[in-house]
Amino acid sequence: MAVGESSLPAFYAIEGAQIGVAKAGIKTPGRKDLVVFRFEAGSRCAGVFTKNAFCAAPVQICKSLLNTGLDTKQPFYFVINTGNANAGTGEQGMQDAVTTCEGLAAQVGSDKSQVLPFSTGVIGEKLPVEKIIAGIPAAITALDSASWSEAAEGIMTTDTRPKGATREIKFGGSTVKVSGVSKGAGMIKPNMATMLGFVATDANISQPLLEQLLKEAADASFNRITIDGDTSTNDACMLVATGQSAAPEITETHDDFESFKAALKGLFIELAHLIVRDGEGATKFVSVAVEGALTQEEALESAYTIAHSPLIKTALFASDPNWGRILAALGRAPIENFDLNKVDIYLGDVQIVSRGGKCSDYTEEKGQAVMNQEEIDIRILLQRGDVNETVWTTDLSHDYVTINAEYRT
Amino acid sequence: MAVGESSLPAFYAIEGAQIGVAKAGIKTPGRKDLVVFRFEAGSRCAGVFTKNAFCAAPVQICKSLLNTGLDTKQPFYFVINTGNANAGTGEQGMQDAVTTCEGLAAQVGSDKSQVLPFSTGVIGEKLPVEKIIAGIPAAITALDSASWSEAAEGIMTTDTRPKGATREIKFGGSTVKVSGVSKGAGMIKPNMATMLGFVATDANISQPLLEQLLKEAADASFNRITIDGDTSTNDACMLVATGQSAAPEITETHDDFESFKAALKGLFIELAHLIVRDGEGATKFVSVAVEGALTQEEALESAYTIAHSPLIKTALFASDPNWGRILAALGRAPIENFDLNKVDIYLGDVQIVSRGGKCSDYTEEKGQAVMNQEEIDIRILLQRGDVNETVWTTDLSHDYVTINAEYRT
Repeated sequence: MAVGESSLPAFYAIEGAQIGVAKAGIKTPGRKDLVVFRFEAGSRCAGVFTKNAFCAAPVQICKSLLNTGLDTKQPFYFVINTGNANAGTGEQGMQDAVTTCEGLAAQVGSDKSQVLPFSTGVIGEKLPVEKIIAGIPAAITALDSASWSEAAEGIMTTDTRPKGATREIKFGGSTVKVSGVSKGAGMIKPNMATMLGFVATDANISQPLLEQLLKEAADASFNRITIDGDTSTNDACMLVATGQSAAPEITETHDDFESFKAALKGLFIELAHLIVRDGEGATKFVSVAVEGALTQEEALESAYTIAHSPLIKTALFASDPNWGRILAALGRAPIENFDLNKVDIYLGDVQIVSRGGKCSDYTEEKGQAVMNQEEIDIRILLQRGDVNETVWTTDLSHDYVTINAEYRT
Repeated sequence: MAVGESSLPAFYAIEGAQIGVAKAGIKTPGRKDLVVFRFEAGSRCAGVFTKNAFCAAPVQICKSLLNTGLDTKQPFYFVINTGNANAGTGEQGMQDAVTTCEGLAAQVGSDKSQVLPFSTGVIGEKLPVEKIIAGIPAAITALDSASWSEAAEGIMTTDTRPKGATREIKFGGSTVKVSGVSKGAGMIKPNMATMLGFVATDANISQPLLEQLLKEAADASFNRITIDGDTSTNDACMLVATGQSAAPEITETHDDFESFKAALKGLFIELAHLIVRDGEGATKFVSVAVEGALTQEEALESAYTIAHSPLIKTALFASDPNWGRILAALGRAPIENFDLNKVDIYLGDVQIVSRGGKCSDYTEEKGQAVMNQEEIDIRILLQRGDVNETVWTTDLSHDYVTINAEYRT
């Protein structure tokens, strides 16, 4: 189940970035489950990771490599497996992740410090390193700049469909290209969740600016989505700039900078929305906008309180305009000195609550008409300040329970 | 669906407290939906209420009456309706609640300030005042000290069974009696939720001590349970002491005080557990204990993060010992400088995690044996300090989704 139709775009190849995919039989024989990225020497690399205290072994290694300075004057690699998260695996898990990196490095005549590992799948089971090592040669042989679609498939877990987005952006009279894939369907919450995102561009971007652009884009996209409030141990989102485009270097002072930044952010939001639309058991794509808050925290906390409420989510599943549940959830949001007599609530274009009370011209039929739609906008006007925030989520359906009650069996 | 068997106890009558129940046809014709309590002059009354900012009209009136000093030298009344929460109803809702109180006061020759109103049911619909007023005479006629079972039935909403507890407690060589009823099945969270609790004792307790005893007992019971993390607009828990027992006044310096307090707390916990066991769609009764925290907040936040995780709750429903989800949820709990290498996790008697890693002698079979039970204890040892807290919750089942997707239809 997923909301709306979706198919992969015709990805732009990114010069300097190659992808190889293999079937290593990690969890399910015969499926694409191992993805290798290779980036040319001179590429720059930025990453943001889960804030979960129990972050998985591969995440720890990635963070450490990025901190101590991956040698970007040499080619570097990502090795991504699905089917096993290598999380909650202690010392053995760290060793297994290192062994995987060493295995890839040996194949390509590089050093393990040039290989960033990523894992997604079941938590708490030993990584089948031997299968991964055995699969690496096929992935290396397959390396090709045209394989973005295969990458999108190769990183799926409970996803029902592959996710990708691609852009060509004018910059300084030339063009730069950006392509990316993402995965994730459950355990999705701010701060990354079982979310993996790999985005590459041929633009030439300095390391500090690349990191800043990634942080801003991830905050506006992957850090604004939630399916079930659970945050994974493995989330990672990577942005690589190969610098092979003919366009001038991306700088903040360039006339085209804002439009480049907006396009990049747009691609991240597209990748993030694809995850929500494919949320476990999702039948609705729901946008929750809180406007007129005093602070960003207040806006986000209010939006997430609504987005996480099981009662609101089951009402969305039932297409039931049970606005009392929105009001009740908002009432428990952590807002200081909350004056409910200022609050307006809209469901799509229909105003339900005006100044804390039911609108006199609201009818159940009007609310029902909005709830029957597959895409629903909930808008809350707090009228306290001028901060606005939007988060995106899904409903809570029988399929969500089924999927998560049966995932391991 | 509910966890375990349950039947109402043989309630002790509480001298000075009478109960009358009627069928007012508020939402469903022919069911007990209107309950009146009458307390003799000289009784004392304490209440704790929802912290939801959108608290319902009756809650606002109760709080105001208790603050401005209900005249306990006169008899006073509770009037409780089910089927309609009179919440999100604005000025009209306040007027309707007042009209209800006036209606009862007129019947018994009292003043509306001697009547505390309580409502539970659907949010956002106008209270059918006329039906309630019409039902009051029958409830007044029925007033009797033996009607606790009827009260337990008369306050149910989505509850599948009535809930009550009763105690006889030795005090100063004599005995005091305590009886109580509670209701609630969804929207249950700390700070009361769609939870109503009415407890009366014939003990003689001063007003300040009564308020203190209620606060402590509610914090240890109703404020430690959660079904879906949603807090209602209507929660209220009342404790009335009629003072008609022959036992000496309850004072903190009396030798029997601690045992009285423990017995009272035990009754509150029993009433709270009955709510969890009857949680919407519940198939498991789950205790989440966090031990060795630095602060109470840290212990509670960790316990609730686990108790609210949809992934853990669906795993509980599936009897799946998916301990990785416990670890992942704990990892996103708001604990500063969290050293996961100190954490131990137990499922029942089975240790799963030792010092942050899977126990070497843990087997899936051992975990499965615990998960197959209907009552499950999750115990987390943080080894950071000496604060312990326990909260109680349920699993997340298909029936939860069904109940909440269909409640209004």
